[in-house]
Amino acid sequence: MSTSLFEYEPRDWRTDATGAVRFALVGIGWWTSEYVLPAIEEIDYCTTTTVVSSSTEKTDRVREEYDTVEHGLTYDEFADGEAADAYDAVYVCTPNATHLEHVEAAARNGKAVLCEKPMEATVERAEALVEVCEDNDVPLMVAYRMHTEPAVRRARELVREGVIGDPVLVHGENSQPLLRMIENPDQWRLNPDLTGYGTSVMDLGIYPLNTARFILDADPVQVQSTMASEHEAFDEVPDEVATFSVVFDDGTHAACSSSQNAHDHTRLEIVGTEGRIELEPAFHMETSLTVAQGDTTVDVETEQVDQMAEEFEYFAQQVLADEPLYADGEHGLLDMKAIRAIHEAAESGETVDVE
Amino acid sequence: MSTSLFEYEPRDWRTDATGAVRFALVGIGWWTSEYVLPAIEEIDYCTTTTVVSSSTEKTDRVREEYDTVEHGLTYDEFADGEAADAYDAVYVCTPNATHLEHVEAAARNGKAVLCEKPMEATVERAEALVEVCEDNDVPLMVAYRMHTEPAVRRARELVREGVIGDPVLVHGENSQPLLRMIENPDQWRLNPDLTGYGTSVMDLGIYPLNTARFILDADPVQVQSTMASEHEAFDEVPDEVATFSVVFDDGTHAACSSSQNAHDHTRLEIVGTEGRIELEPAFHMETSLTVAQGDTTVDVETEQVDQMAEEFEYFAQQVLADEPLYADGEHGLLDMKAIRAIHEAAESGETVDVE
Repeated sequence: MSTSLFEYEPRDWRTDATGAVRFALVGIGWWTSEYVLPAIEEIDYCTTTTVVSSSTEKTDRVREEYDTVEHGLTYDEFADGEAADAYDAVYVCTPNATHLEHVEAAARNGKAVLCEKPMEATVERAEALVEVCEDNDVPLMVAYRMHTEPAVRRARELVREGVIGDPVLVHGENSQPLLRMIENPDQWRLNPDLTGYGTSVMDLGIYPLNTARFILDADPVQVQSTMASEHEAFDEVPDEVATFSVVFDDGTHAACSSSQNAHDHTRLEIVGTEGRIELEPAFHMETSLTVAQGDTTVDVETEQVDQMAEEFEYFAQQVLADEPLYADGEHGLLDMKAIRAIHEAAESGETVDVE
Repeated sequence: MSTSLFEYEPRDWRTDATGAVRFALVGIGWWTSEYVLPAIEEIDYCTTTTVVSSSTEKTDRVREEYDTVEHGLTYDEFADGEAADAYDAVYVCTPNATHLEHVEAAARNGKAVLCEKPMEATVERAEALVEVCEDNDVPLMVAYRMHTEPAVRRARELVREGVIGDPVLVHGENSQPLLRMIENPDQWRLNPDLTGYGTSVMDLGIYPLNTARFILDADPVQVQSTMASEHEAFDEVPDEVATFSVVFDDGTHAACSSSQNAHDHTRLEIVGTEGRIELEPAFHMETSLTVAQGDTTVDVETEQVDQMAEEFEYFAQQVLADEPLYADGEHGLLDMKAIRAIHEAAESGETVDVE
């Protein structure tokens, strides 16, 4: 086996930068409240000074809870550049189809951008998002939290070291009971104007897709897909459930699935010529790693990090040091193109190239 | 949870039959030698009296080792009906494309037939196989050993009882390093004249396909697939590796894979609205069952049975009692049609109906 079972290369970021990145958090939903605000609070190089929401109640609550937060803005106030001197970077965690307008506002004001995935509702809007950051010369990073996960980073190193031989197959699964998590059926993930191409691949399928890209260091070139929506809450989106296959440019084949109306379950596996790597659960905040080579199977328990704290610390350090960011806009854009291709494939019943 | 964790309905066979079924085993390869001959030896209601092979060396060796075996026949002798009085039933375990001729010989002589899966090399030949058994009024069973596996039978009952809610997704994987198991690249599974449509779906993918059918009590209606062969030993067959999706008539969607040139790994999972059932390993002679419902996950260790002994005992009892056999020819034929559709889908890049 390999020493990578016991050691791994953490996300390589600059640690010599000084100062701090002051954040405006745009969208104060469940994710930002539960995970992002507490994570930033833990990091020396980050601070939240500004929160942006349509709900004054929400921004007031955050300002009460967090001493560092000076400004609570509406989306219009944010768009107008109000209090723009108070922050250096913007984290966007709003419905997919609203990312572009918030990133545009951030870019206009010269702020670094950390945007949640999927980048936007459509490829065209994601392209516009990349462009506005380029035009305004502001750094852009897409928030793939799995890239900071120690179990995922170990998996990547083990694959690189050849522990499983040549990768052959990927199996990726991500399902959750959305209507139990958010009981109101009138929610943005079920509204095509806000979610984009669909719900389960955009929101869940992107995890096996992108994490496989990261571990394999390979990109999707061809896809197939079948989708179905039966529950009435999913009337407006095609993919209450989806299966999709992906051919990567290294020749690896993936068989994946996603459902917004099933048991909570996540798993990612890479089967190679000599062994197998499995993450299960794969895409939760806690993951578990199993590595097999020949007849030997090893369960590896890795340290539990706060993925969001790692992500924000990396982003802040790189921005402070004026170093490039990973995943950048082009990286995120390729996922958008793959997801568009998956939806086209499901609709046409044909194999579709990612382009 | 459910009492089915602790109890299960064994294959329901008649136990009041008297007498024994005397077998001719056609094809004395690894499987017959390692698993079938010893299994039959254990069963009161079965005995092997005849073995058929192109190799006199092999038949001589079996006759030396097993007292009950009176006759060693060549394929021609078997086809001519030599020693036909010495056996009541025929087990066919030869290359796919040779099943039909041996079943024809068995049927002509009025013998009950137990034929390995996949039934034949093509749908047309499998249809001819079913027809010749019907025309000669002999019982036909296709040898799906997973139907006798206690973990699989429990999984089926747990699904029926609703333990995982409504089934939503199936994940099936079956891969093995064929060229290490049988080092000679000049082997029948890599020869399209003998294997049929291909190698990995015919030989391996049929396991998740059929076991999902059995557990869900549902049939495949639509498929997609991507296949690739890169290793030179796989030049003549399209599917060194394959991913395929299956839509079942109950609305369940499956994402499956098979490879003849990868790490030995088998897994089957059914994800429902309320829980999840996992078999891993799934398709070996030993299986392991995990059941999750809500936040509870249970690992179930089941008794280890000899799947082949169970299969032969069931077959013998049903034949002695003149009762119907499961899986019958029509059941096996549907798998052949699904596999044909999977190959058509891979070749055309389009979604294909199973028909």
